[in-house]
Amino acid sequence: MGGFSLNDLEKIVAERAMASPDQSWTAKLVAAGQTKAAKKLGEEATETVIAAVAQDRNDLVGESADLLYHLLVVLKIADIPLQEVLDELQRRTAQSGLQEKASRQPS
Amino acid sequence: MGGFSLNDLEKIVAERAMASPDQSWTAKLVAAGQTKAAKKLGEEATETVIAAVAQDRNDLVGESADLLYHLLVVLKIADIPLQEVLDELQRRTAQSGLQEKASRQPS
Amino acid sequence: MGGFSLNDLEKIVAERAMASPDQSWTAKLVAAGQTKAAKKLGEEATETVIAAVAQDRNDLVGESADLLYHLLVVLKIADIPLQEVLDELQRRTAQSGLQEKASRQPS
Amino acid sequence: MGGFSLNDLEKIVAERAMASPDQSWTAKLVAAGQTKAAKKLGEEATETVIAAVAQDRNDLVGESADLLYHLLVVLKIADIPLQEVLDELQRRTAQSGLQEKASRQPS
Repeated sequence: MGGFSLNDLEKIVAERAMASPDQSWTAKLVAAGQTKAAKKLGEEATETVIAAVAQDRNDLVGESADLLYHLLVVLKIADIPLQEVLDELQRRTAQSGLQEKASRQPS
Repeated sequence: MGGFSLNDLEKIVAERAMASPDQSWTAKLVAAGQTKAAKKLGEEATETVIAAVAQDRNDLVGESADLLYHLLVVLKIADIPLQEVLDELQRRTAQSGLQEKASRQPS
Repeated sequence: MGGFSLNDLEKIVAERAMASPDQSWTAKLVAAGQTKAAKKLGEEATETVIAAVAQDRNDLVGESADLLYHLLVVLKIADIPLQEVLDELQRRTAQSGLQEKASRQPS
Repeated sequence: MGGFSLNDLEKIVAERAMASPDQSWTAKLVAAGQTKAAKKLGEEATETVIAAVAQDRNDLVGESADLLYHLLVVLKIADIPLQEVLDELQRRTAQSGLQEKASRQPS
């Protein structure tokens, strides 16, 4: 509680996106456009997958952080608020929760 | 505030991971192990990248949701609390913030 | 020499692409279009990366085969002959070969 | 016929793998090990997927060339001859060919 949240990161990404591309990596990535940002997202995903399979705990923490950051940059460029993705997650997990309950009924 | 958060999803993933693999997709994925979960993460990342490049807003919301869900499953299997990843993000953004300030100093 | 080649596979992909999507997986994939085929390519790449990192020799042979097959399907949909890609490889390796020779010159 | 083949590239990769890492990118990648090489393979795959979805013909030729090159480096590190992968492809396509013929039989 009170810890850094993904919503905090979203605010930081939004602030930095407005900085000069010379002074901020985030601004540089946003200026480069969605294809470049998506490519970086794909690279970080590959590194996360490798760290997971290699069971390298430290790497997995670091690569997961990079993956989340680049996902927020991609969402920023697409003008999609993080909460819209989280609401979709709530809807999907609520649905699958209902399905799980249904599957527990006696047949 | 008040909205569904990634921390909420983490709790749901933790609960479902303890269910029977017959009754929960999450439990099934956790039981299958890290290599299988990481493979699913990689697939969702590819779909997120494609949705971003294709500029398909609806798909990007849905694929980002799937990507976040599968990342939490991978972290669960690796026994890494989400907050550990968020703390790492805070550290990295604080650092790059300092670098940005430094780069604004007169030379 | 005399072994099955990637050019042989290219011919098979071209033949099957013209079959009915009901009777051929290749035809089905070609009919589904480039986004779907590229997604499959991305999935096979993730599985190849995992097999390589996990040092699972059998899996790496199988996943590499799947990766090559799906790459040929993507090239077929884009109407790019395999030889065009191979010619590009020849050009790049010739160039880097020249650079290597140059780097061996006395300074 | 007579064009540059993937087998030709395999020979070049094998030769360069024995060079000094200072003088050859291939040798450098082989020396860095499978995790690094697999990561590069994953990156090139993401770029190939993006070029395919973006329908950028030139990029798709170039990225496919990079993907094939990095696949051969991964196979070299794993000590898997390209022909072993091609033989597997022949087996799989022969099988699916039989299945296709079977599916054409009257029911």
